[in-house]
This record gives sequence, structure tokens and C-alpha cells, in this order.
Amino acid sequence: MATQELEFKGYALVDPKNFTDLKVTAFKPKTFQADDVEISITHCGVCGSDLHTLKQGWGESHLPLVVGHEIVGKATRVGDNVKDIKVGDRVGVGAKIGSCMKCRQCKGEYENYCAKGISTYNSEYPDGVVTQGGYSTAIRAHQQFVFPIPDALESRHAAPMLCGGLTVYSPLVTNGAGPGKKVGIIGIGGLGHFALLFAKALGAEVYAFTHSPRKMEDAKKLGADHVDFAKEHAGMLDLIVSTMDATPQLPLKEFLTMLYVHGRFVTVGLPDADEHLPTLHAFDLVPNGCFIGGSAIGSKKECVAMLALAAEKGIKPWIEELPMKDAKKALEGLGDNKVKYRYVLSQDLV
Amino acid sequence: MATQELEFKGYALVDPKNFTDLKVTAFKPKTFQADDVEISITHCGVCGSDLHTLKQGWGESHLPLVVGHEIVGKATRVGDNVKDIKVGDRVGVGAKIGSCMKCRQCKGEYENYCAKGISTYNSEYPDGVVTQGGYSTAIRAHQQFVFPIPDALESRHAAPMLCGGLTVYSPLVTNGAGPGKKVGIIGIGGLGHFALLFAKALGAEVYAFTHSPRKMEDAKKLGADHVDFAKEHAGMLDLIVSTMDATPQLPLKEFLTMLYVHGRFVTVGLPDADEHLPTLHAFDLVPNGCFIGGSAIGSKKECVAMLALAAEKGIKPWIEELPMKDAKKALEGLGDNKVKYRYVLSQDLV
Repeated sequence: MATQELEFKGYALVDPKNFTDLKVTAFKPKTFQADDVEISITHCGVCGSDLHTLKQGWGESHLPLVVGHEIVGKATRVGDNVKDIKVGDRVGVGAKIGSCMKCRQCKGEYENYCAKGISTYNSEYPDGVVTQGGYSTAIRAHQQFVFPIPDALESRHAAPMLCGGLTVYSPLVTNGAGPGKKVGIIGIGGLGHFALLFAKALGAEVYAFTHSPRKMEDAKKLGADHVDFAKEHAGMLDLIVSTMDATPQLPLKEFLTMLYVHGRFVTVGLPDADEHLPTLHAFDLVPNGCFIGGSAIGSKKECVAMLALAAEKGIKPWIEELPMKDAKKALEGLGDNKVKYRYVLSQDLV
Repeated sequence: MATQELEFKGYALVDPKNFTDLKVTAFKPKTFQADDVEISITHCGVCGSDLHTLKQGWGESHLPLVVGHEIVGKATRVGDNVKDIKVGDRVGVGAKIGSCMKCRQCKGEYENYCAKGISTYNSEYPDGVVTQGGYSTAIRAHQQFVFPIPDALESRHAAPMLCGGLTVYSPLVTNGAGPGKKVGIIGIGGLGHFALLFAKALGAEVYAFTHSPRKMEDAKKLGADHVDFAKEHAGMLDLIVSTMDATPQLPLKEFLTMLYVHGRFVTVGLPDADEHLPTLHAFDLVPNGCFIGGSAIGSKKECVAMLALAAEKGIKPWIEELPMKDAKKALEGLGDNKVKYRYVLSQDLV
């Protein structure tokens, strides 16, 4: 049932040549259906994907387009099929808002890997309406992609967890990060800072890999037990999560030699299409029986567990909060690598 | 205690220009120690590694050199520390005969991944003696690398399991091949034929990938449930074990798209040093969160379990048995890809 009529509008890209000059624009939401939750947005994190999309780095985008997929707000309407959310609940949405719900992935709690998944912005709902993101007043999403936020978490802290946090939490738990395990984190940015926080909270012994003296200090504060590139790590780590763009410059072979038997190197960093991984030989994988793999955001099941862990352990991301109208400042700070470590926009349109 | 004096001699490479003309040559065994088992050899399988080494394909070898690392025979002497083997037992040796026994790998039942492992031939014992393989009368090995052979297995069938069989059995069990899992096997040769036999015996649904019509028929007889390259496998397989040399020509990206979420592609095929893997992009790994990795033979624990499975299920490899003096014929048949699917040499020097 609907409790109020929301006006759908947001800070939209209208001219790709001036991609940080977003203009308040009204948009049409998807047709509301029985599995949908409608959310009045209070906060939205600023993700690297937003910048890639606005710059047309991943191809031409729809126009006008509202980005943002680290969304927290209040449920204002819930469909008849919705199970775990009621009007008035504080809820969040990440990088996807729908999937087919019929394939093996969707039925196996891997709905984030559905081949027909619908992205939170710059995608199309089955009814043809273009999806619009969270630098806006409101959004509608399928319940499988709407996450209840525990009372103990502030909305501004929960928001950036829903893409940035989940993207690293998922490979950490999937690959066994926990007590007795040695976990390396490459790249101390938005995702990397979450990876340190969560790897530590999960009980792993955490190694941070960065060449920046400033970030070395931060990494310790974020929970890293070791911060360096020491050679004696050969054969020692159980898992490495790389949040750097996986480009030909990544010293991948060196990192693989740091892995223990059957250790895994997981990349969540997606560079431009023409930047491939360093070329490997079977001899790079066989001596320690190691693996290199990827990971794509996470499932609702994982997101709920992540939020519960954050609530239980009092995990607070390092954020800088700005009103939504200052999205330009946030996007420029992100582009200039000044962010430390996530911008979160708060609602100013309603 | 020693029950008899063995003469150590074997069919040795003496002239790399004529690498299949092996000459009977006496050699010095390693100094016998408290953890060693001495074995009077009855059978030795002919592995692709033997040919690579004889051809000097993996670098210059020691001379004279006896190859062969799929060895079965009788224990003729056991050191005071040896636990599970007594004189007269039927035992086997695979591709390694020693390791440091002190590192995390050795203490963690991954002694096959010890960085100081000693290969069965063309390596050096700590006392400086060059290791000599199984186309010979006898060998001495550390007990951790000597495997009791179950009574139900014929020696000629057990021998090729100790490298060829174990090399594929280990990644199958490590990566969960079993009931409810769909497992693909690439390359139906010596290793691939074992992979089909073991994947089926472990209860997996088995897909064989080969372009050879003759091998398609054989693959079905070996236990494959499906034999083809159908496109509809996209996102379906839990595990692929590749026994082909992992070269730039391998259609790796196609195989990765066949994997289900977090599915794994494991290569056990080691090409020459200048043949690298196809170059990948992070986009090849992220959409299904898949992994590519390697595997190196297997541990004693795995070997004992593999032999028990073979005994229980009556697994018989497809072999062709020849007297050791016909090693030339076996090596030439292997080089010409006429083997179907493993040559096993039987003792003719004692």
C-alpha cells in the first residue's frame, strides 16, 4: 500500500561534456509490482562506478541519467508479495535492483550473478523504463535487492556498505577469511578500506599492501596487522583481495607467489575494456596450486550478514558527508583521489 | 632391516641425441636413512614427463639418467622410523621421493607442495646423489612418498595411478567433484582418461571435451555422461580439469563462460616455458565470479584415498604392458600420440 505520493526527481547527467554538472530532473519510475519496495531516499554513497558512467567510460549512457547505487532511505510502499519489509522500515539498495528470479543463480541465493540482472541505474526495467539511481528522491526495487538496515547502523554509514562494502565482504566470506587465515588487501581506497575493516572484523590476520606512506598509517588504523610488501610473505597468504584495477601493470605473479597452497587471488577491480590482466604461464599457478578469480558485488543473504556484522562490531566506514547538491564536489574529489575513503550524499530535494 | 642386497641398475639415458636408446647402467642409490623405504621394482608407468626430460625439453638433464615415476614394487628394507610399511609389502612411488618435512606445507599434509621437494629422477638427494627413476631395479624413498597398494589392485594398474592418476584425482577432490556436481574434463589422454574414471567414480556428472571422434567413443566407455562442445553449457559446470597443455591456443575464455558461480578451471597441463596462457581481462572472471588455477600431483593422504577408491570401485586404467627393454617402443608411441592411454613397463632386469 502507498502512504504518500512521492515525486521522482534527481540530480541528473544531461550533458556528458560537463559530466559533474548534474541538473535536477524529474523521471518516471518503473510500474509498481507485487514484489517491489518503494523507497524515499535519505542517503546515497558516491561510488567509482558513478564516475565511470558519467564520464561515458563504460560506453554511452542513457540521458538524462541519475547515478548512485549505495542507497538508504525509508520504505514508503511495499508490494503484496514482499516478506521482510514493511512501510516505514529503514532499508537500502545496492548496485542491482532486479533479476530473473528463475535461473539456477537466482534460486541458489546468487541472484547477484543472474545473467539478466538489472543495474540500479543506466539499465532498463522489463517495462522499458530506464533505471535511475540514488542521487534522487526515491527508487523502486524488487524485494530481493532491498536490504533491511539494522537499528545500530547510521544511514550514512550503511549506505556505502551496499556496493563498496558488499563487493569486498562477499569474496572475503566466500573464500574463508576468518580466524587462523592470513588475508592480503591490495589497494587502500573506498573498497580497500572496507576490505580491511571487514577482514579484521571476520577475525583474519590482515596484510595491507600499499606504497603510499599516508595510506600505510590509515591502514593500521583500519585494522591491518601488517603493512608492507615484504618478500618473506612467499607461500604465506590464504587469500588476497585486490581492489586495484587489474591492469597489465599489476605485479600479479609476485602476489601469486605470496599465496599458500590453493590460496586465492580475487580481483574486484574492473579497469577499462582495453586493460587486460598480466599474461600468466601455467607455471605461475601449478607450484602452489593457487587460483586467480573474480567476484561481483554480493547477494542479499551476504548483505544481510554483512550489515549484522557491522552492527555487532560497531564498524564505521570513514566517510565525508555532503548535501546531494554538492555531488559535483564529491565526484571531483573522487576523481582526484582525494576521497578518504567514501563520500556520502544526504537528501536535500525533499 | 635389509632382507637382500639389491643391485641398482636401470635403462638410462646416456646420449641426449638418441634419447629413446636407453642403456642398462648401474647407479648409486642414496644413503639409506631411518625414514626410507627401499623398493624392488616390478612395474613402472611411462609418463609424459619422462619424454619431456629425455628430450631435454625442460632443460639439460643429469647423465646418465634413469626416468620413470609411476613405480610399483616390493619393500625390501624399511628404516626404523617407518610406520605403515613393512618388508614384503607391495608399495608404490610417484613423482616425488622426498621433501623438507618441516615447513607449513609438509606439516599440513601438502608435502607435494614443499618448496624443497625432491623429484623422483633428475633431482638431487641432500647427500648429493642424483635421483634415478623407475625404469630400473630398485629405488629408495622417504616413507611420506611411499604408498601402500591395496590387495585388490593389480600392480600394472596401480603404477600409472601414482602420477597420472593422482595428478587429476587431487584437483577433483580438492574442488568438490562428487554427487550433484557437473565436472568437465579437457583432453582425453593419459591424464584425461584417469580424470574421467575418477570423476565418475566420485559420483559427479561428467562432461568430456574432445574434438577426436575416436576419443569421443572412448570417453563414453570411460564414464563420460556427455561428450561434446555444446554452447548450452554456459554457466553450468562446477569444475573443469584441463589436462591439455595450457598454451595461447587453449580456448580458455570459452571454457570460463561454461562455469557456474565460483566455478573453477584447473590446469594440470604444463607446456614448455615459452607457451603462456591466453591473456585474460578481469571481465572474464567477474561476471560469474569464476577461478582459474593449477594443481601439482597430490599428497600421500590423497594417494591413499585414491587407491582405496580404485580398489572399491574396481577402476582399471586402459594400459598397454611392455617389458622394460621395450621402453623405446613405449616412448615412441607416447611421442606419436598412439598411446591408449598409458604404457606400463614390467621388470626384466632381475
